[in-house]
Formats: sequence, structure tokens, C-alpha cells
Amino acid sequence: MNKLVNKIIREGKVIEDRILKVDNFLNHQIDVELFNWMGKEFKERFKDKDINKIMTLETSGIGIACIVAQYFDNVPVVFAKKHSGTNMDANVYEADVYSFTKNKDYKIRVSKNYLNENDKVLIIDDFLAMGSASAGLISLCEQAGAAVEGIGIAIEKKFQQGRQEILNKGIQLESLAIVEALEDGKVVFSKE
Amino acid sequence: MNKLVNKIIREGKVIEDRILKVDNFLNHQIDVELFNWMGKEFKERFKDKDINKIMTLETSGIGIACIVAQYFDNVPVVFAKKHSGTNMDANVYEADVYSFTKNKDYKIRVSKNYLNENDKVLIIDDFLAMGSASAGLISLCEQAGAAVEGIGIAIEKKFQQGRQEILNKGIQLESLAIVEALEDGKVVFSKE
Repeated sequence: MNKLVNKIIREGKVIEDRILKVDNFLNHQIDVELFNWMGKEFKERFKDKDINKIMTLETSGIGIACIVAQYFDNVPVVFAKKHSGTNMDANVYEADVYSFTKNKDYKIRVSKNYLNENDKVLIIDDFLAMGSASAGLISLCEQAGAAVEGIGIAIEKKFQQGRQEILNKGIQLESLAIVEALEDGKVVFSKE
Repeated sequence: MNKLVNKIIREGKVIEDRILKVDNFLNHQIDVELFNWMGKEFKERFKDKDINKIMTLETSGIGIACIVAQYFDNVPVVFAKKHSGTNMDANVYEADVYSFTKNKDYKIRVSKNYLNENDKVLIIDDFLAMGSASAGLISLCEQAGAAVEGIGIAIEKKFQQGRQEILNKGIQLESLAIVEALEDGKVVFSKE
């Protein structure tokens, strides 16, 4: 049984056949039991990989990444930052990400202290759409000389094509719920 | 043994006797094992409370809150938002928070769907300084008619006085590491 798919069917909301709203359990209110299921599932799918760091992007990826890390021997989690405070290191890797919800570019940053050539990274994120956030995280890893061992996504909106660029780089992609379409207020899932 | 205090002694950095930087394990890179220790500790300190929701504020509170929730029967976590995307509900409770690092006010918001008069809330956050963020979260709970059963803080900078306002409201406050002063590049902890 795919607990995430079931949850989306029961509690996800489709708005204007364009937005899938999962505020109820994923990115405003959080269902920690569901995140634990996701952690077990990612561990199973990436069991052959030797992972020593989990990387994500603020905000919604952080909770998932922390719970998932428990299934990978509590490896450190590092989250790339979107908003630079006065406390941020000056010595950072930086990449541009395009936000479709906000219709503008923003920078993501990670301190050079927390990503290096010895890292074998599993990237975790809540959504994969056009793949701009994933591309930004991959770029940070490439700049640091870190290896991207895999990308684990909660919900992939397959019709937005983010998948291909990741596969072209030879990276293992695992999405727990793959959405083929948002139609007539309903979610159509992939049969895979 | 207080694992958080030990970690701060070993890896925290004091900048200009003003800022305590804990990027290495708390708010950029995350030590999930340490967060689990924090979860156990909060459960012990709030064991007499009947908690059915954990509330925090993006960004740095989210990881802690998710791990802590596991020690409170996996109750839902809700995080108040600082940045409103197009996906945010219009129907929200709102409060002002003053940021001392950025020297300006910002709004925090929570959807009315995820906070109500049946909620018995444990507020979790990474830092307590002047108490502005805590006051904002308490205000959101008050607006919703939710009861604040306690506030659990990782690191309290006691010299910044946030503690008194919380105690004046009769709320149980538990800080895992209480910093009395930042002096000569060192952290002085409370003896309590």
C-alpha cells in the first residue's frame, strides 16, 4: 500500500487543475507518521547506495529530510538556504532556481563547510515539477565535488517534465507518488 | 549529561560576543541524533501535559519539531509561515514578530484550518532571545482559542530577557541549554 498516494487521494486538493495542495499533511501541517513511512520507503529504494549526507532545500524539505535521515544511520542533514540572514557564512556555493509559483529567480546557498568532495548525497524534496530546485541542488553538489547518489521526491508532477534532466545525468530518481495529470479537480496517478 | 550543552561547547562559535553560531548541528547542518535526544528530553519535562499538536516557526524550528513529535505519539506538527506563497490559504491568523538579526518586523501566519480551540499546543523553537517569535506564536494560539501547554526551546539566550514574558503568562518554559552570557568568545551557561 502506498500511504502517500492514499493520503493525497483522501486529503489533497486540486485547485484550477494546476495546483495540488497538500497543506494538510506535507507543507503546513505535517503528518510525522507518514514521513516515517516515506523514510522506510526511501531506505528500501536506495538500499544499495552508500549515503553519508542528506541534502534538501528550505522550507518544506526540512521535515521530510530529518525524518528520512533516521533510516540512513542518522547521517547529517544539510539544507540549502533561500533567505540569507546576517548569520550566514560568506563562503558559500550558490545556484539559481526559478520559482514557478512566484514567477521569479532566487538564489540558493550552502556553506562550503557542509558540502565537500567526500560527500555521497541523497537529495530529498517535497515536490518535483519542472526540476529547477533539483537542478540547483545538483549544481551545489557539483561545485563542491560531492557525488549525488540519488534523488528522493515525495510528489512528482510528471507532466511538468522535471524527471528527464535528472535521468540524463544518470542519477537514480525515486518519487513516492507520481502524478500524471490534474484533471477535473482530481489527481490522476501514474500506474508505475 | 546534557548533550546539547556539550555540543555547543565543542562546536558552537561566538561571534563578537553577540551571536552564537550553531550552523554546524542546528540550523544549516542538522544533527538528527542530537534532535532525538532533545525529543526525549522534552517528553520527560512535559510528561504531565496532554499535548495534541506541536507548533513551530519556519525555518529552523521545523526539523526539531518533526523529530520531537515522535516522542509525543506522532501528534501533527504545524509550522507558522514567514513567507506567503500563492498556495497559502487566505483564511489565516496573523501576528507580528520583530527580527533582531534583520532589524525589522515581519508577519507570521497560520491557516485557520490547522489551529483551533481543541488544540493543546507545545511550541518548539530553536532559540529564545527577546521572545518576539514566541510571543507571535502564543498570539496565534490565543486568536485560535488553542491552549499553550508549554514552550520547549533548544537554546535560550537568557540575558536577552525573553523568559519573563512567557512565565508571566503562566506557561511552562523548558530550555535545554540556557546561556547566561557570551563573553571573550566563550559561552557561559546557567548553573540551573
